[in-house]
Amino acid sequence: MSNKYENPYNGLKRIFHEPNRLAIMSALCSSANGLTFRELKEDCDLTDGNLSRHLKALEEAEVVVVNKKFVGVKPQTTISLTDKGRDSFIEYLQALEEVLKKAADAVSSGEEKVTLPFPGIKPANA
Amino acid sequence: MSNKYENPYNGLKRIFHEPNRLAIMSALCSSANGLTFRELKEDCDLTDGNLSRHLKALEEAEVVVVNKKFVGVKPQTTISLTDKGRDSFIEYLQALEEVLKKAADAVSSGEEKVTLPFPGIKPANA
Repeated sequence: MSNKYENPYNGLKRIFHEPNRLAIMSALCSSANGLTFRELKEDCDLTDGNLSRHLKALEEAEVVVVNKKFVGVKPQTTISLTDKGRDSFIEYLQALEEVLKKAADAVSSGEEKVTLPFPGIKPANA
Repeated sequence: MSNKYENPYNGLKRIFHEPNRLAIMSALCSSANGLTFRELKEDCDLTDGNLSRHLKALEEAEVVVVNKKFVGVKPQTTISLTDKGRDSFIEYLQALEEVLKKAADAVSSGEEKVTLPFPGIKPANA
């Protein structure tokens, strides 16, 4: 069946689509050496329980790694993206851009045209 | 608490964030006179049950209206956006654009810079 809306929406990986996970992934993307549990929790305004739950799902999907170590006598948890995580998050963002473009076109169709020159998100390590 | 990631992600109205609902809202936006149940189902590649379930949620949120009438002897269901629905979907798209921009910036931070000149989505009836 021909389908105008099928492709872009199906490209939205559900693992990243939840708003808090989007926040977590974005925060991790901007930090090459990962973030501590505490930093991530504060950046994303999440409770310990909520962040743990999301990290568990992201870890199972192999998009983040969680490392526990001791700094002196204090335990510290550091979370970083895997290469797979970074690549698939970039793919997700590209799909999201496609969806947004399509929706913006739909909103402006039949009315005053809105020009949205989306240049595409390129993988940072291309 | 200061929070770098709080605002844009909280702006993502959950009623629209589900990918199939995004597809439904986009399809309805591009049709000034609404769409029949059958058209919407085919456009969005959904089953009857799935589409009904999403429409129920969207109708309860007062963002779509569902009209049933007879065309000759055949019942026909037509779905259209409410003004509130259109306005709040546009707000959602603006929040989504903000989130995408933030994530794209995060992806490119520390690596090769990616320029993303998002011009903003203007309400079509502004």
